[in-house]
Amino acid sequence: MTQFIKNAWYVAGFEREFDDQLRRVTILDEHIVMFRRSDGKIAALEDRCPHRLLPLSKGKRIGDTVQCGYHGLTFDCAGKCTRVPGQDNLPASAYVHAYPTETRHGITWIWMGDLDKADPALIFDMPEFTDPAWAVHLGEPLYLKSHYLNVAENLVDPAHVSFVHPTTLGSAASENVPVHVSTGGEVITAWRWIMDAEPVGFFKSFGGFTGNVDRWHYYHLHMPCTAVIDFGSAAAGQLAPDASEADRNTGVRIFAIHLITPVTATETIDRWLHIRNTATDDTDAPARMDAMFRTAFAEDKEILEAVQEEEARPARRRPIRIAIDKAPLAYRKRINDLLELERTEDLASAPSPAFVYHD
Amino acid sequence: MTQFIKNAWYVAGFEREFDDQLRRVTILDEHIVMFRRSDGKIAALEDRCPHRLLPLSKGKRIGDTVQCGYHGLTFDCAGKCTRVPGQDNLPASAYVHAYPTETRHGITWIWMGDLDKADPALIFDMPEFTDPAWAVHLGEPLYLKSHYLNVAENLVDPAHVSFVHPTTLGSAASENVPVHVSTGGEVITAWRWIMDAEPVGFFKSFGGFTGNVDRWHYYHLHMPCTAVIDFGSAAAGQLAPDASEADRNTGVRIFAIHLITPVTATETIDRWLHIRNTATDDTDAPARMDAMFRTAFAEDKEILEAVQEEEARPARRRPIRIAIDKAPLAYRKRINDLLELERTEDLASAPSPAFVYHD
Amino acid sequence: MTQFIKNAWYVAGFEREFDDQLRRVTILDEHIVMFRRSDGKIAALEDRCPHRLLPLSKGKRIGDTVQCGYHGLTFDCAGKCTRVPGQDNLPASAYVHAYPTETRHGITWIWMGDLDKADPALIFDMPEFTDPAWAVHLGEPLYLKSHYLNVAENLVDPAHVSFVHPTTLGSAASENVPVHVSTGGEVITAWRWIMDAEPVGFFKSFGGFTGNVDRWHYYHLHMPCTAVIDFGSAAAGQLAPDASEADRNTGVRIFAIHLITPVTATETIDRWLHIRNTATDDTDAPARMDAMFRTAFAEDKEILEAVQEEEARPARRRPIRIAIDKAPLAYRKRINDLLELERTEDLASAPSPAFVYHD
Repeated sequence: MTQFIKNAWYVAGFEREFDDQLRRVTILDEHIVMFRRSDGKIAALEDRCPHRLLPLSKGKRIGDTVQCGYHGLTFDCAGKCTRVPGQDNLPASAYVHAYPTETRHGITWIWMGDLDKADPALIFDMPEFTDPAWAVHLGEPLYLKSHYLNVAENLVDPAHVSFVHPTTLGSAASENVPVHVSTGGEVITAWRWIMDAEPVGFFKSFGGFTGNVDRWHYYHLHMPCTAVIDFGSAAAGQLAPDASEADRNTGVRIFAIHLITPVTATETIDRWLHIRNTATDDTDAPARMDAMFRTAFAEDKEILEAVQEEEARPARRRPIRIAIDKAPLAYRKRINDLLELERTEDLASAPSPAFVYHD
Repeated sequence: MTQFIKNAWYVAGFEREFDDQLRRVTILDEHIVMFRRSDGKIAALEDRCPHRLLPLSKGKRIGDTVQCGYHGLTFDCAGKCTRVPGQDNLPASAYVHAYPTETRHGITWIWMGDLDKADPALIFDMPEFTDPAWAVHLGEPLYLKSHYLNVAENLVDPAHVSFVHPTTLGSAASENVPVHVSTGGEVITAWRWIMDAEPVGFFKSFGGFTGNVDRWHYYHLHMPCTAVIDFGSAAAGQLAPDASEADRNTGVRIFAIHLITPVTATETIDRWLHIRNTATDDTDAPARMDAMFRTAFAEDKEILEAVQEEEARPARRRPIRIAIDKAPLAYRKRINDLLELERTEDLASAPSPAFVYHD
Repeated sequence: MTQFIKNAWYVAGFEREFDDQLRRVTILDEHIVMFRRSDGKIAALEDRCPHRLLPLSKGKRIGDTVQCGYHGLTFDCAGKCTRVPGQDNLPASAYVHAYPTETRHGITWIWMGDLDKADPALIFDMPEFTDPAWAVHLGEPLYLKSHYLNVAENLVDPAHVSFVHPTTLGSAASENVPVHVSTGGEVITAWRWIMDAEPVGFFKSFGGFTGNVDRWHYYHLHMPCTAVIDFGSAAAGQLAPDASEADRNTGVRIFAIHLITPVTATETIDRWLHIRNTATDDTDAPARMDAMFRTAFAEDKEILEAVQEEEARPARRRPIRIAIDKAPLAYRKRINDLLELERTEDLASAPSPAFVYHD
């Protein structure tokens, strides 16, 4: 029912969310205590003392160790117990799981699966993060009372934009424009071009367009939980339909990136950021963009939370599927395949050094 | 456990509760979106898009159709899908259930069962609604955190009046007066006369009595959820005990009508109204009566919600039954018989055109 | 899962919590209506009318009987029905359970088990309650969202004091001092002496010590739910380690007594009081001690409620046990033995006169 892909990097937070204080975060329904170590790296430990189960986040930091607030058991950043008050020996079972983390571009990632599979090369990245022609702006966390699959699916679904975001990201002009989908590669992509139409609210505000534009939306979904939305506009006729990546750079182009963290079966955080090739020197631009995104994402939140509530009710009949569902369905299938893979792998034959899952 | 009679007309609301906006109501634990159509009739549709399950009440009206707020699927007042954006064909499974409604005397009824059994002749009515000798006043909805059976049972239970409503509808004089019950016909009736006693609060206020009165309470319960309480007073000795309907009209007589709508297994709405043969031209009378009824019904609400909480707890022993329970028990039996009838009818052999129950 | 010892006296409240009004209390997940009778004793009845299950606490007192607020059934303080309105006979099944109570030293105890086993000699007592050399002060109820076993266990666990109460009852000086445990008798006792250390906050405030002290903590746990903590300090070297009861009286000595009432599976009340041999004539002392205890017990509450939340989550591995757990584990074992005893006793062969448990 509540199924999560374990062997993946998830976003634990923007790096700025962590400091030297103990902070509890919940990811894949696991409680984790996190803090910035003295060397600047981010530590992440199972947030539950193995003795009487008090969350370690209720305890205190002593150097780069965490002391439990109940009986003083102390753990280092590798999860190893370094002290049990009242006795000299440290039992082998006195440990907590330590989660690998990696911080890049101000984003802190955490590995939730088997320790021997935690490969930093798997972390999502793209060259525009460090390309001086582009401006990066980290947005903020959006908290949704919704299963993460619904949140992610919504980000590979161009068809909802016309109806959910009619004043910001979409317009009636796109209501019936067909969606193209590519599901063959590592990334699922859905896209469409709306040709020769009035610019939508966002590009009225940022493109400086006076006449009609050709507008594109490319939704790239990286498994399991990172969505990159490439959307932009160019004066009508400037670009060929389906123009290449390089050609699209000649228009006004924004990458809206959504880093989705499954919190529990019914809660998800969507941390969003944007990378733009327009107004890169305009220091007010991020705040203005944030305001528009906030409006749009509040619209998504209302829809997604209402869907979550309905899905929790007894169903009379199976939901219907329609033409525009191709990419969302491909995403669901991909997730199911990954879950099946994790279920059938013999975890017992290659246990992680410090943590064996029994649930 | 949560059992409702499906093949029945229930009150969806006073007609005044509906306008041209989409309004969600919940009846028998089903979510329904309702609105006033352009021709003035009240539309009622299943409040869940068959595609991604968004409540249609989160969408918008376009003429006499409702457009889903997620992907724009559109449904007419018969529940038929008239548009699926992004494709030309309309799949047969793209429909929502449309509930029959009927509005009379300012009350909007809805049929919750098989469409081929929705007979408007079954809707509760009585001639006093349109008789100029009587004044009708619609009260207000009373929301109770209580199973509907407890609410309805309470309305065929004269014995509680002395203890729950000692200052408004009852008095100590009636504590030990036996209750008569008739359970043979379509309607279950419980009644008693309290002879030659001081008038209760209500008739002190409205009857203008200076001496003792004979007071009657007739509780008529129409299956499954309409209660008509005929209560009145006449100067002591004016009427024979058990006086006829016609004779009772010579006294001060009030019909307090309760239209009970099961909302969920633990929530019920009791919409009440009154029809009186006294002070019919007194424009202040309804507000004064409402105030007294509000006091009395708040007393019922407190009792019924406390009972609901107790019933939800594990039971040590079976509740006892006593002499005054005859009418409530007859009502429970009648409801159980109706439930059994609905369970054993072969619904599959005569499915409703647009809606097959699978739960 | 939710297991309580039935055959025991529990504290229903400080006597001052009861007056002539009907008051609902919940103990072992049973609802009980309590009030002070005209003869001053405290009555305790099952708080549920056997007819329609309305809590009797929603009704009203008539002399030393309680009249149900729904249909007027009336019960005396023995639980016997004395009136059923509308009928003359009183059915044998029309009773409520009456719980034995005893009030001593301002504390009202209730017996939750078989009536024939309710022996007042089993009630916890100690001579200091009435010894003029000692001053008794009843504190207040502390409400905890925690299973009672965790609350009780915490009171036979000296090791937590250093970490949970570093500014009031403990200090770093005691972190590694071993704990002695005696589990052989009726009472489980854990204790330790911290020799020649700076006085902790409490004894700085009340002992008037200028130099180092020897400090003792004796935790006596009486089954199932009464904890007596004997703690005190004497000038360093004044007493032999492990000094006798009589010798300890020459120091500054406090009995902090915790009367634990299991409310539900996840709620507990800890009513605390203290008996002191210091500042016995100082009328301000109780308020100052209460303030310190309130600070300390709020620290326990935070820990215990966090543990309760963690215990409710699915567990990956069994908690570990360490050297300092000896007394808590002995307590758990004792409770389990008592539960097993109650389960295996043939209750059916000797039913209580008025109440047979079926759950």
